[in-house]
Amino acid sequence: MSVTGAPVLGFVGVGRMGAGIAQRLHEAGYSISAVYDVNRSAAERLAPLVGAQAVSDLASVTQRADVILTVVTDDAAQRGLFAPIGDSLLVGCAGKTFINCATLTPEVHVDIQERCRARGAQSLEACMASSIPQAREGTLYLMVAGERGTFDRMQPLLEKMSASLRYIGEAGSAAKVKALVNMVMNINTAGLAEGLGLGAALGLDLEMLREVFSQTGARSRVLETDGADMQNREHETFFSSAHAAKDSHIATALAHGVDLELPLAQATARQYDRLVELGLGELDKSAVAELTFPQRRAERVGVA
Amino acid sequence: MSVTGAPVLGFVGVGRMGAGIAQRLHEAGYSISAVYDVNRSAAERLAPLVGAQAVSDLASVTQRADVILTVVTDDAAQRGLFAPIGDSLLVGCAGKTFINCATLTPEVHVDIQERCRARGAQSLEACMASSIPQAREGTLYLMVAGERGTFDRMQPLLEKMSASLRYIGEAGSAAKVKALVNMVMNINTAGLAEGLGLGAALGLDLEMLREVFSQTGARSRVLETDGADMQNREHETFFSSAHAAKDSHIATALAHGVDLELPLAQATARQYDRLVELGLGELDKSAVAELTFPQRRAERVGVA
Repeated sequence: MSVTGAPVLGFVGVGRMGAGIAQRLHEAGYSISAVYDVNRSAAERLAPLVGAQAVSDLASVTQRADVILTVVTDDAAQRGLFAPIGDSLLVGCAGKTFINCATLTPEVHVDIQERCRARGAQSLEACMASSIPQAREGTLYLMVAGERGTFDRMQPLLEKMSASLRYIGEAGSAAKVKALVNMVMNINTAGLAEGLGLGAALGLDLEMLREVFSQTGARSRVLETDGADMQNREHETFFSSAHAAKDSHIATALAHGVDLELPLAQATARQYDRLVELGLGELDKSAVAELTFPQRRAERVGVA
Repeated sequence: MSVTGAPVLGFVGVGRMGAGIAQRLHEAGYSISAVYDVNRSAAERLAPLVGAQAVSDLASVTQRADVILTVVTDDAAQRGLFAPIGDSLLVGCAGKTFINCATLTPEVHVDIQERCRARGAQSLEACMASSIPQAREGTLYLMVAGERGTFDRMQPLLEKMSASLRYIGEAGSAAKVKALVNMVMNINTAGLAEGLGLGAALGLDLEMLREVFSQTGARSRVLETDGADMQNREHETFFSSAHAAKDSHIATALAHGVDLELPLAQATARQYDRLVELGLGELDKSAVAELTFPQRRAERVGVA
């Protein structure tokens, strides 16, 4: 099936999240003309699954698509896509719409909106507060910011990606909310790892401890999603520790910008930095428990 | 009504929690013979409500009751009740049972068990992971440790206090679990205060932000209990910041004892210490938001 009158889509950045969204929108009937990734093999793996062509330059994505979704890693990667010179999504972009899904510093979204406007294009930020299965199933929690008219025009497409869609406000505002969500989530995760790690060190039954947490003031969403994984050292990646480090730093930089001291957010950023320094950044965020369980710490010292 | 064959009760420490439990057990049919508080007027206020006598020494409580419930503030107060010399609950305590409800350093419970055993008495720790309304209604989440036989004998009484009753293990073990519950709860509370404070500083709509938190990985029990209070500066005390400071220090001391570094627990303890230093220790734990909302910080500087 195909969606009549629907825009043709292009994708830039087809890692776990980007590929999941592309497959979902393909199944929902959207035509996808081009996919691009700096890791060319990722684009080539995905292309046949969504009836698209894997292209090797950014300008080709803009040329072939009406709406281009970008799902990249960080500020530098996102800015690179919209470079003012050289190969760039901005080449021939008049009339096109960009939907940028990465968790970034808010001002990057504002800058990109300005660059797009100056060339007759539109842009939105679409911040995802969910993980890989939700991307694949079209059940993301999606917070969108940018011009209201652009949001209204893109709403049918955004609804196919999400179970919950929310327009937040002007460019940068959804990224702020997203940074705060991840900041609090990461604090709760690092805190839970301390509770379970100390419980293990005291010889408590961790099944019992997690159940008590779940029925008391210690309850949290991350207890449900990460508690057993911390206990069992199952750190298959849904949201990497490297991403947690990056997002914690986005939040602490925002705090710094308004002269606010946030000691827990800073301590959390340091924990995730340590994981990255230990070479564990590609493990799931639950791996922060590797720093707080005494036996695991001892193992690392033994290895080093 | 009265419970046939039931033990006669005494109460030591009748602040908000102790008084609530006494009223609940009185209504459930238990006879209460004596109540004691270092704040004599608290005991005199409660006594007529529960058909008891307000007594002015600890030995009188032991003398008049079969089972003595203690609900005091901290380690020093608890140790004082069981002093080896002078006025003490230990005077004439053979055959009596003590149920100690405060959140304390686990080894205090172990010490008290030993002192009681040496004099032919029994003791239990009954750690409460709930607040004032639950004490009054008999719906506490109650974690109990000590000798199993003593627990079994006290179970009918403990069930009248609780909606959820759990035997954890040997003396000190319930206090360890309780310390971990409060440690994680306090981390989540201090982290939430940072998220909402930064949201306010960035000019975000805090109603929207709390709703987004509630639907994402930032969700927690303290978001439900304290989120609106942080936004609205409603810090009526259910669990005081001074208690949060004390409990955070119990947990960090336990961590220190097993040579474990817990940076978030330490940062949280420092935040609650700061509240106490600012004279805000008697406000609810939600008052930690007074440290993280920029306007509130500015007010304090203005006042100082």
